[in-house]
Amino acid sequence: MDEPRERETIEERAQARLDQLTKPLGSLGRLEPVIVRLAKITGRVIPRTEQPMLLVFAADHGVAEEGVSRYAPEVTEEMAVNLAMGTAVSSVLARNQGIPIEVVDVGIARAVRHPAVLNAKVAWGTQNFVEQSAMTPEQARQAVDIGQERVRRAVGAGHDILLLGELGIGNTTAASALAAVLLGVDPAEVLGRGTGLDDRALAHKERVIRQALARHPEAMQDPWDAMARLGGFEIAALAGAVLEAARHRMPVVLDGFITGVAALWATRVDPAARDVLLASHRSAEPGHRRVLDELGLTPLLDLELRLGEGSGALFAYPLIRLAGRVMAETATFEDARVTPV
Amino acid sequence: MDEPRERETIEERAQARLDQLTKPLGSLGRLEPVIVRLAKITGRVIPRTEQPMLLVFAADHGVAEEGVSRYAPEVTEEMAVNLAMGTAVSSVLARNQGIPIEVVDVGIARAVRHPAVLNAKVAWGTQNFVEQSAMTPEQARQAVDIGQERVRRAVGAGHDILLLGELGIGNTTAASALAAVLLGVDPAEVLGRGTGLDDRALAHKERVIRQALARHPEAMQDPWDAMARLGGFEIAALAGAVLEAARHRMPVVLDGFITGVAALWATRVDPAARDVLLASHRSAEPGHRRVLDELGLTPLLDLELRLGEGSGALFAYPLIRLAGRVMAETATFEDARVTPV
Repeated sequence: MDEPRERETIEERAQARLDQLTKPLGSLGRLEPVIVRLAKITGRVIPRTEQPMLLVFAADHGVAEEGVSRYAPEVTEEMAVNLAMGTAVSSVLARNQGIPIEVVDVGIARAVRHPAVLNAKVAWGTQNFVEQSAMTPEQARQAVDIGQERVRRAVGAGHDILLLGELGIGNTTAASALAAVLLGVDPAEVLGRGTGLDDRALAHKERVIRQALARHPEAMQDPWDAMARLGGFEIAALAGAVLEAARHRMPVVLDGFITGVAALWATRVDPAARDVLLASHRSAEPGHRRVLDELGLTPLLDLELRLGEGSGALFAYPLIRLAGRVMAETATFEDARVTPV
Repeated sequence: MDEPRERETIEERAQARLDQLTKPLGSLGRLEPVIVRLAKITGRVIPRTEQPMLLVFAADHGVAEEGVSRYAPEVTEEMAVNLAMGTAVSSVLARNQGIPIEVVDVGIARAVRHPAVLNAKVAWGTQNFVEQSAMTPEQARQAVDIGQERVRRAVGAGHDILLLGELGIGNTTAASALAAVLLGVDPAEVLGRGTGLDDRALAHKERVIRQALARHPEAMQDPWDAMARLGGFEIAALAGAVLEAARHRMPVVLDGFITGVAALWATRVDPAARDVLLASHRSAEPGHRRVLDELGLTPLLDLELRLGEGSGALFAYPLIRLAGRVMAETATFEDARVTPV
């Protein structure tokens, strides 16, 4: 007796449809598991991912005063304005695909000079975690809540796939510290050049992270405590966005290292969050590979991007959109009367 | 004394502009050399690649009678019709980007049942090159001419970037034989599973190629002779398209192994053809890596695609288009008053 069709999982049905399309079996390569994953996330054999939105969370980091970035802290605000004005790289990438961007100030250290940047400031930047906790537990919770709220609104507005990005001078330092704790590895394994440090500056960044980890040994115990001590407002908001997207079965396209660490944190709080994630690219930041491995994700692109602001997610989205259209519009062997194998 | 600006090359000027955009230096990774290459090809610091066209050449191969493909030879015609009807994978990828496709029958072995497939048949498939020359020298010339003519028309119609694709049951066998000769390597190094051969069928394919190479030792002497003896109508037409695009300084986005071998042949006839090439992806076909290395090309995507029909070029085009828009629309540090390093 045949199994009733209802007993097949969505993934099985999606793979079966892929195998019926007029193409050699498996010939879409690594895009096929992406399509099957989207089907599983959305609960549709032919997934819909046509209404994307890019959420960019921006905040400053107290640790920037240790000189861990090539850029001055005011660049966070300047780039948030540049992004909102439509003149940053990610603005261009989004506009040319008709993708709306929401830039959310969750903790920029200055007043932002552009009304299109949503003001949801938790504080004027985090504290320097070499000296004290970056955030209070309440602030960390508040930043996570903001991320959740933005995603609830995005879902309400009809968006069906979420792209994530961030801005924050100093945030690869915070993300590396948090990643070292979440992965239980030495900071050297998740350390990178950020926006372009030389060897000497990289060694300094490593010392700063080691100091911070020594200052906060308790961070190992609990993800919420780790976030408050070592994270950042934008990292917490990104994590909140992932948690909320998971509740709505909304696919989340990660960007680089920072969004990856935020997603990793989200999976520590809710393991189901892992299921909605897609990796857009593998960045030049060495810790990114470790984070993606831990999340079980294979990136679509490997272009050595290290720009942030959601740029990798925006470069990968066309592949995801097109893969979805292939699933929806390609004829099957039967439809097209093409001789199968 | 400063060098006058005119003395800088287009590449230098393109890289200088990239370095002024509001992003960390070099942060677009492997897309930056692609942008610089496009600038060099088109002679514009801000290259224009907004009017793409996909040219798909289709033909049959006498060697298919040796059983070197999983698919029956009639599938070439069936897939050409599927592509023209808008229901093949590449039709879907092209339509969803507004990219016109021209499907050109340069030698399908049957009458084609759809008027949208352009009839430019040189013959009803090539001869089986295990027994005799695949084409006469005149036929090879004629197929190259067709490729050139289609590109002249595309340029005349205002297209500014060319995507290439092919259809032809048995054509990885022909392309492997031709690649072995052009690269001077053992066929085992450029042999692959095509649309999905198992180990036994792969060993058979290798024997067939060795037989062909033994039958045509003269093929080593001259690219035109190699094409006639071991090539195919669609491979020759693709090569003609590359040669003509090079004359018009029109960027050419290659697809997989077959288009790569055609481009390699074109560079043997006109070394300048190399300068207009872009590699969209590295396919699952092992010979593809060898061909791209010889052409000095780094592919944008590495997704284990093995579909043909221009699908890899169509998946990569959004990256090329977006990279061009970034160059045109992103603010410089000066424009945006962002604090540079």
